[in-house]
Amino acid sequence: MKKIIFSWLLLIVIAGSAQHLDVYPTHWWVQMKWNKVQLLVHEADPKYILAVEKLTARCSSPDIKIKDIHKVENRRYLLFDIEIAPNAKPQVATISFGGIVPKEQRSFRFELKARRPGNGTAFANGATAADLIYLIMPDRFSNGDPTNDRVAGMRDQSLNRDSVFERHGGDLKGIQNHLDYLKDLGVTAVWLNPVIENDMPDRTEHGYAFTDHYKIDPRIGGATAYKDLINALHAKGMKMIQDAVYNHTGLEHILFRDQPDSTWFHRWPAFTQTNYKDQAVFDPYGSKIDKKIMQDGWFVTTMPDWNQQNPFVQNFLIQHALWCVEEFGIDGWRIDTYAYNDLGFMNRCNHALYDEYPKISIFGETWVHGVPNQSYFCQNNYSIPFKSNLQATTDFQTLFYGIIPAVSEPFGWTEGVNKLYTTLAQDFVYKDPTREVIFLDNHDLPRFYSVVNEDTAKYKLAFAWLLTGRGIPQMYYGSEVLMAGTTWPNDGHVRKDFPGGWEGDKENKFLAAGRTEKENAVFNYIRTLANFRKRSSALTKGRLMQFAPYDGVYVYFRYDDQQTIMCAMNTNKKPFTIALDRFRERLQKFSSGTDVVSGSGIPLKDSLTLNPMSNQILELK
Amino acid sequence: MKKIIFSWLLLIVIAGSAQHLDVYPTHWWVQMKWNKVQLLVHEADPKYILAVEKLTARCSSPDIKIKDIHKVENRRYLLFDIEIAPNAKPQVATISFGGIVPKEQRSFRFELKARRPGNGTAFANGATAADLIYLIMPDRFSNGDPTNDRVAGMRDQSLNRDSVFERHGGDLKGIQNHLDYLKDLGVTAVWLNPVIENDMPDRTEHGYAFTDHYKIDPRIGGATAYKDLINALHAKGMKMIQDAVYNHTGLEHILFRDQPDSTWFHRWPAFTQTNYKDQAVFDPYGSKIDKKIMQDGWFVTTMPDWNQQNPFVQNFLIQHALWCVEEFGIDGWRIDTYAYNDLGFMNRCNHALYDEYPKISIFGETWVHGVPNQSYFCQNNYSIPFKSNLQATTDFQTLFYGIIPAVSEPFGWTEGVNKLYTTLAQDFVYKDPTREVIFLDNHDLPRFYSVVNEDTAKYKLAFAWLLTGRGIPQMYYGSEVLMAGTTWPNDGHVRKDFPGGWEGDKENKFLAAGRTEKENAVFNYIRTLANFRKRSSALTKGRLMQFAPYDGVYVYFRYDDQQTIMCAMNTNKKPFTIALDRFRERLQKFSSGTDVVSGSGIPLKDSLTLNPMSNQILELK
Repeated sequence: MKKIIFSWLLLIVIAGSAQHLDVYPTHWWVQMKWNKVQLLVHEADPKYILAVEKLTARCSSPDIKIKDIHKVENRRYLLFDIEIAPNAKPQVATISFGGIVPKEQRSFRFELKARRPGNGTAFANGATAADLIYLIMPDRFSNGDPTNDRVAGMRDQSLNRDSVFERHGGDLKGIQNHLDYLKDLGVTAVWLNPVIENDMPDRTEHGYAFTDHYKIDPRIGGATAYKDLINALHAKGMKMIQDAVYNHTGLEHILFRDQPDSTWFHRWPAFTQTNYKDQAVFDPYGSKIDKKIMQDGWFVTTMPDWNQQNPFVQNFLIQHALWCVEEFGIDGWRIDTYAYNDLGFMNRCNHALYDEYPKISIFGETWVHGVPNQSYFCQNNYSIPFKSNLQATTDFQTLFYGIIPAVSEPFGWTEGVNKLYTTLAQDFVYKDPTREVIFLDNHDLPRFYSVVNEDTAKYKLAFAWLLTGRGIPQMYYGSEVLMAGTTWPNDGHVRKDFPGGWEGDKENKFLAAGRTEKENAVFNYIRTLANFRKRSSALTKGRLMQFAPYDGVYVYFRYDDQQTIMCAMNTNKKPFTIALDRFRERLQKFSSGTDVVSGSGIPLKDSLTLNPMSNQILELK
Repeated sequence: MKKIIFSWLLLIVIAGSAQHLDVYPTHWWVQMKWNKVQLLVHEADPKYILAVEKLTARCSSPDIKIKDIHKVENRRYLLFDIEIAPNAKPQVATISFGGIVPKEQRSFRFELKARRPGNGTAFANGATAADLIYLIMPDRFSNGDPTNDRVAGMRDQSLNRDSVFERHGGDLKGIQNHLDYLKDLGVTAVWLNPVIENDMPDRTEHGYAFTDHYKIDPRIGGATAYKDLINALHAKGMKMIQDAVYNHTGLEHILFRDQPDSTWFHRWPAFTQTNYKDQAVFDPYGSKIDKKIMQDGWFVTTMPDWNQQNPFVQNFLIQHALWCVEEFGIDGWRIDTYAYNDLGFMNRCNHALYDEYPKISIFGETWVHGVPNQSYFCQNNYSIPFKSNLQATTDFQTLFYGIIPAVSEPFGWTEGVNKLYTTLAQDFVYKDPTREVIFLDNHDLPRFYSVVNEDTAKYKLAFAWLLTGRGIPQMYYGSEVLMAGTTWPNDGHVRKDFPGGWEGDKENKFLAAGRTEKENAVFNYIRTLANFRKRSSALTKGRLMQFAPYDGVYVYFRYDDQQTIMCAMNTNKKPFTIALDRFRERLQKFSSGTDVVSGSGIPLKDSLTLNPMSNQILELK
């Protein structure tokens, strides 16, 4: 197919086609629903241009139709709208374009691959309440391949485990090496902080400043290691959740350094940081300027904010999401800084993924305060003009207004464990609260062991809630071995290395022998519960019933037709005896319970005495 | 019309018709939409019964059809379902009933009155955001008629102004005497704590334990004084809001003392108090028992809880509501302890009022914590199985999580005046948040002057918010003259007498000369704002725009096509200068503002300097 586009540019002779063109996406697949792909082609050499006045293009394959070509102000870019025939076979095609004189022609190869086998069974199955997600910052877990610790040519050449902001050398191979450890612990899904290339001069450990969407960062092993890790996970029946960043990118991204035109990123007369005010998005009384600053302001100085209203940007970001899932076999999708994005565009992104991968799970980060605030950003029961199609969010509400006050505050009418009860009671606003991702900490928050001032009773109580609560539990690497750290004086201290992850580490907490008695006690507690949970229909698929707390004691049940689990959370510092009569709706004919941690049988008659600061979990018999 | 009902009772000869029968409602009106009335007839004398085996009934008027007669277990009661012809004229009819032998006949007179004139204009117009509601506890405001301070035959014969729990002698005439004072202050509507008879042995000052729904308490002047007061209000263009109590009644109510049968009140094996857990009503994980205790438990020992599932109880309560509005000319309806009622039944009650009086306003007391909790009970934007038709609630959220922290807490990301901003941002869950009743205190809460530790700057700031905020402002009697009081050691201390309301009071704060300089300063501040508000289209009908607070300063605007009001709330203890650029969306072409309190003109260029702890209110020019 040949198409002639008349340009507004002067005719400029372009050079021969020897030099390299970057094409995004790098390749695509046959038989994708998303078969109208927009190829962004870039010529890196400023001596050359691509956008000539009398532009023609043709494809070597009859299976790929070039529907349109878009020029942008920067003549080193061209965008090709192609359409892949539904019955196209895997192949490598050549797309040629240029002026009408042959010597002005340029070309690039574009491959259509066969789709990843096992769609709907081997990948993109989504994380559910039956999973336990383990969040890892790849640079900080384990160094499986010391040869990639520094990569020549990259801007950040740091390698210093003594600094929380320099690179430590952890990588994907290090994670893969410990999958048996994770599986034994009860983990079923891994969420990694972003794996996309971050070729920034510093602070590259966190991964949120992408510089090339189509490269896995070579310092963690690149695409090969990522595929290896995911294949290994799938072989063990485990899942991979990728951390997606639509809102911003790294300052060193080619699309920012050599911008297609002035509309690809939000520009401000002077640097303008987002106000971080989620309220500005949904406030019926909000001003346009507060909303604009919220969504169009930059997250930080080093991460330019995409203009998601630009249709080219939209296609670039959506196609990258689809590409990652298909290329690597991703199971679930976590979206960073969800509230800062253009929410209409987010719906489009989510829809593209749901459409291609009906069982994929998607959750968004919503570090906000208030159930209305959080639920606005996901599927909810509000009849309001904007309706999010996001399945779920990171449930900061059951953390900030739930489990933290439960173990930290004295009990009161609206304090202590009553907050956990009342926050959950507000779940009627969610479409499906069982998809909410519940957690005690993550890479941005103080480690929970520090939140509870290293009180293991409180810590175990909280983990008992995490592993019996409604939603999808997510834990943070090293929590099982009592890794501590606060965000003071900076948040790097919550991203320390997992002890034993590096050759020569003095301690190896991956092994029981390397852990202290206290660490093993907590490790075994979590491991026991997490593995019990795996097999428990009530905890993974059952319903929740909660009773109003009294005297610092909160009783809830998880149940289905097969199983009833009673959880009795005593947040007092002393033992407490509760009368059981009020719970007969769920106790029914059960006469005893088995403590799922100790295995002890406990008779259930008129009362039950609970240990201080504990969450007793009983499988009823 | 004659109807024969065959009874399950033995034939018992009933006595002659000389003795008195109580009939509820006492009378009805022609041309009401609610023309199918259920008359509850009671014979007080235990020697007599009404429910004989072969019961017949007839009415002297062809305009009243007796559709059915219901017996209950207690034979001293009968219920007559009557239907009033649409074209019936005012009249007094006689309804006779009894066995088939004439000497067994009983009868009662039943009057159909002409409807109150001016429906839709002279009463039942509802309170709106254009109103300022003034809440008065009648016993504590002013004693206009010392002859009714004690009423012979009533159980509570206390009269002791030194005790917060005994009667003080205040009455409706005392309120009527001060309508000019209230109108001058800027008040447009009066809400009284309940006026219905409370013939209880003690604690009768609050009025929430009804003993005869069809009597206005004689100690505050009875029905005559109530009608006089309302007529006087209407003559001044002011409104009356009645305090309705559907949930419970007084222990000395005839329907409790001589119960029709065992199903009219919630009964428990042992006294069971409500758990006061609103969550139990809407919690998707709630237990049946917690909900039952919440809604069927008694509020306190002296107030039996109506079984609102009993259709006779339903009719009794609904008809009483309609009867009050028509009988007295009520404008608005405040419903006590809303969350404790059967909510389906509440919808029926509200619907009956809306249907008969389309412009009436109804708001419910919802002393709860959380916008989801509160909004569940009124018209909202939730697509959930239960949909409330209540227009609005008492907005405890903007109090507890709004104006109190704004003046009490140091400013922080989620603290201080940020709470007011973020609570209002959650308004998207309400159908119409402008109908929410906003307030600083009421008869159950610490007086706001005590909440702010008698800091008049904070106090004025809060009143400035109350009178410029979204919703219908409600103030509590005496707040304008700095009445103080906390709920410790008991809540009686927030219900002290208005100084000057009693003959011989040492101080008379109804008069400027009787107020201290500080009191006059606050009085005049409130009076100025309240009167400005009356005339302000922006404050009474306009929209709200709020900007994210920074540095303890919260700026919001009320505006419509005619007027723009800028409110700049500085919660710092020092002056603060704000840049105005961020507000240009509303500042538009305005170049100055008039301080609505001082009348000073203030230029609006690049910045505005705000006084410490103040809410500067500017009408823009």
